[in-house]
Amino acid sequence: MNVKLNENERIDQLYSSDVKIIQNPEVFSFSLDAVLLAYFTKIPLKKVKLVDLCAGNGAVGLFLAHKINGSINSIELQTKLADMAKRSVLLNHLENKIDVFQDDLLNSFRHVPKDSVDIITCNPPYFPNFKASKKNPNKYLAIARHEITTNLDDIMQISQGLLKTNGKAFFVYRPDRLTELMNKMSKYGIIPKQVQFVYPRVNKNANIVLVEGIKSGKVGGLKVLPPITVYNQKNEYNPLVREMLYGK
Amino acid sequence: MNVKLNENERIDQLYSSDVKIIQNPEVFSFSLDAVLLAYFTKIPLKKVKLVDLCAGNGAVGLFLAHKINGSINSIELQTKLADMAKRSVLLNHLENKIDVFQDDLLNSFRHVPKDSVDIITCNPPYFPNFKASKKNPNKYLAIARHEITTNLDDIMQISQGLLKTNGKAFFVYRPDRLTELMNKMSKYGIIPKQVQFVYPRVNKNANIVLVEGIKSGKVGGLKVLPPITVYNQKNEYNPLVREMLYGK
Repeated sequence: MNVKLNENERIDQLYSSDVKIIQNPEVFSFSLDAVLLAYFTKIPLKKVKLVDLCAGNGAVGLFLAHKINGSINSIELQTKLADMAKRSVLLNHLENKIDVFQDDLLNSFRHVPKDSVDIITCNPPYFPNFKASKKNPNKYLAIARHEITTNLDDIMQISQGLLKTNGKAFFVYRPDRLTELMNKMSKYGIIPKQVQFVYPRVNKNANIVLVEGIKSGKVGGLKVLPPITVYNQKNEYNPLVREMLYGK
Repeated sequence: MNVKLNENERIDQLYSSDVKIIQNPEVFSFSLDAVLLAYFTKIPLKKVKLVDLCAGNGAVGLFLAHKINGSINSIELQTKLADMAKRSVLLNHLENKIDVFQDDLLNSFRHVPKDSVDIITCNPPYFPNFKASKKNPNKYLAIARHEITTNLDDIMQISQGLLKTNGKAFFVYRPDRLTELMNKMSKYGIIPKQVQFVYPRVNKNANIVLVEGIKSGKVGGLKVLPPITVYNQKNEYNPLVREMLYGK
């Protein structure tokens, strides 16, 4: 497959799911967040429809493609990022499984019918769009990381609209805003059911949180899964994270 | 000090804080929850007023007495439990530091002025009072564990009223209702600032959560502290928990 690379782009590989991903450090590259979110997302055996919101360069959808019996729709606002995602889909011959839509997530219903989705994944921008916050001067990275073009209310409202009853949403987020995430999920009827914290190393505070919610789920019954610690004392990946990245 | 013991009562000792506690397994005995809550509660050096709500047999106040420069008010609804707490205070010669009030927490302002408290500790009943839930047939234990005589709304409302601005509340709770706890804290302006999860052993889900909130705190900035694992593979307490129980 001949896929054109633009300036500053390179092809990275996630060995554990055997996919190639077009990255551009000037614009967007996937991080451990996307790998963890793909790991945390439970994919059933039956045929399902998955939508990845705030898809960036499409990493989460690409990571999950080999696991899923069904289809993936990735929605990304930023043209350059959506274009990278589209070319990565071609690069991996996944055009029959993954559709990438370049659009505002508020327009999701133009592409995906309401109440039709089994699984949503989303790596939302996690910095508030306060004037005072030090935004990345790079516009692409600023939009991906700050609540400039979207926010938790929009994301939860759209997730709620897209999901079937009892459909599941999986989020990766920053622990420092976990209260707001859980409050917004509750507000839009996406009831948190599983949470898993990721700690960079032993005796450090968590720096990533993974949350699963169920549309119209019963309040309560939250499970807090065993902690994931990324690095050991020698600064090497711990076995679980190594497996997420490189496979067994 | 001659303190009378009633039927079925015994005196237990928490070695780490060198206090004796009157227990009655038929009525109420403190558990690891209270030990963890006392550990998690940050006591400043300055003189402070601490209120322990849902105090049971007074364990948390007794555990913290040696650490605090100031006074402790323990409020407990159940007469038998409040009476045990009062006698434990005498047993430990802490009558100048700890006052136990037998009353409904909704009447807290009769005993403690509004906006006067630096620190609240609370181990709330954590089972909802659904008709369907299997309540403990023992009335004392049922009231301590189920939301029969109080609930999160009452507790947060009273905590909010008692605390000074920027006063801190420390709760021990069950992770399965963490979403509700955080939502109710937010509703009453006690903003979650630190959370710590307690796992019974490696690779198990958390079964206890500790949460610190600040009255009128800024939303966000939640810290998720390193996980506490209670038992090692040999079923012995891990060092941190052993130290909480037996001291260094």
